[in-house]
Amino acid sequence: MATVRLYVEHPLGSGQSVPLNRDQAHYLFGVMRLGPGGDLILFNGRDGAWRAEVAETGKRGGTLACLAQVAPQGAPPDLWLLFAPVKKTRTDFIVEKATEMGARRLLPVQTDFTNAERVRRDRLQAHAVEAAEQCGATWVPELGDLVPLSRLLDGWETTRRLIWADEARAGVASDFGAQVTPGAPGAVLIGPEGGFSPAERARLTTLDFAAPVSLGPRILRADTAAVAALTLWQLHAGDWR
Amino acid sequence: MATVRLYVEHPLGSGQSVPLNRDQAHYLFGVMRLGPGGDLILFNGRDGAWRAEVAETGKRGGTLACLAQVAPQGAPPDLWLLFAPVKKTRTDFIVEKATEMGARRLLPVQTDFTNAERVRRDRLQAHAVEAAEQCGATWVPELGDLVPLSRLLDGWETTRRLIWADEARAGVASDFGAQVTPGAPGAVLIGPEGGFSPAERARLTTLDFAAPVSLGPRILRADTAAVAALTLWQLHAGDWR
Repeated sequence: MATVRLYVEHPLGSGQSVPLNRDQAHYLFGVMRLGPGGDLILFNGRDGAWRAEVAETGKRGGTLACLAQVAPQGAPPDLWLLFAPVKKTRTDFIVEKATEMGARRLLPVQTDFTNAERVRRDRLQAHAVEAAEQCGATWVPELGDLVPLSRLLDGWETTRRLIWADEARAGVASDFGAQVTPGAPGAVLIGPEGGFSPAERARLTTLDFAAPVSLGPRILRADTAAVAALTLWQLHAGDWR
Repeated sequence: MATVRLYVEHPLGSGQSVPLNRDQAHYLFGVMRLGPGGDLILFNGRDGAWRAEVAETGKRGGTLACLAQVAPQGAPPDLWLLFAPVKKTRTDFIVEKATEMGARRLLPVQTDFTNAERVRRDRLQAHAVEAAEQCGATWVPELGDLVPLSRLLDGWETTRRLIWADEARAGVASDFGAQVTPGAPGAVLIGPEGGFSPAERARLTTLDFAAPVSLGPRILRADTAAVAALTLWQLHAGDWR
């Protein structure tokens, strides 16, 4: 049985006492069956990972005691994922997978063919937290509000290379490696089912900081495309090198 | 609106009439709202892709008329995915994603830490069919019955290179490309949540035809690992080159 990992907002440090909220208490004591003295790992995105033990249990709360740091604070590569929200479960999966794959910021974007009018940011954030706990990260990616793609492009910092998955390039040999620079800021953009509109394609094509890439000869669903594109980015420019 | 694509078992050819079963009739006429004369694409894994139109509609059946071939019969690279079945939805996702990613055979394997005793092969096959229809393939991958990993390894054709995702290599630089040969038969093995047992690791390590690879510094869920590993295989040895 793997050690339980828990994301908390509280500061972590030697001898630090960490209070639990109701959800955390339910998860640790109800679901994971930890009792007094039970071991776990804590992280908060700032202080590294800490070994801790259960000091007090309760139905609506409890307290953990921080024992020793077991990993320094890490950080994902400077990689953003821009994605058009799709159906609920698939959007949840995109957030989960992007967290495992080590994206630093997750930005839901409204495109011409996006159906979603809004995203449940709290729900998606919870998926990101759970994925971070599971995959061994010491951070949780930052989740943005839904913004129109056009507005995001208007204010784009041009030093950040934007790679967009282009369905029209289906079948072109993979050209990802030539488009990214190891260690440099990057972003990957995945369109909705139905792809980008002609107007969006026209604009993306004129942008010096953006490049279209092929994701093989088949048309991938948005969640598959997100994992595949993040894999290639991490391989060529990120922390899989 | 993209053209509807439908997988059928029936032979396809010029002037060929194709009968529909109840499920297909419900999908085409009920869900996709096609009426008489409506256009669609058919494939059966043997005769390429054909443009067809609705000849007769009905609640429990109907008939399509094959008009003209629009794509030759394709084939995925000689790539197998071996995966330990996990929870229901995630297993469905593995099958869907492996189809989009272009695996030719999908083999559920029983490992020491696999929880599933059986898999619903008809259910998984339906997911593979739907994914093939959606991604533009002209074939559907072959889905095997659940077999013990040890038995599969006993009868392994040693010319097929087996790449296994090794959690113990988390953080090692990506070494996938060095382990595969473009155009040669290959297979990717993804373990269950909890990884491989010490006995399985020991055996895999002794096999000349098998090689462990790293999938980055984080622990990926089985479905994420499947997409990432298939991406790397297709990039280095398959039809993404």
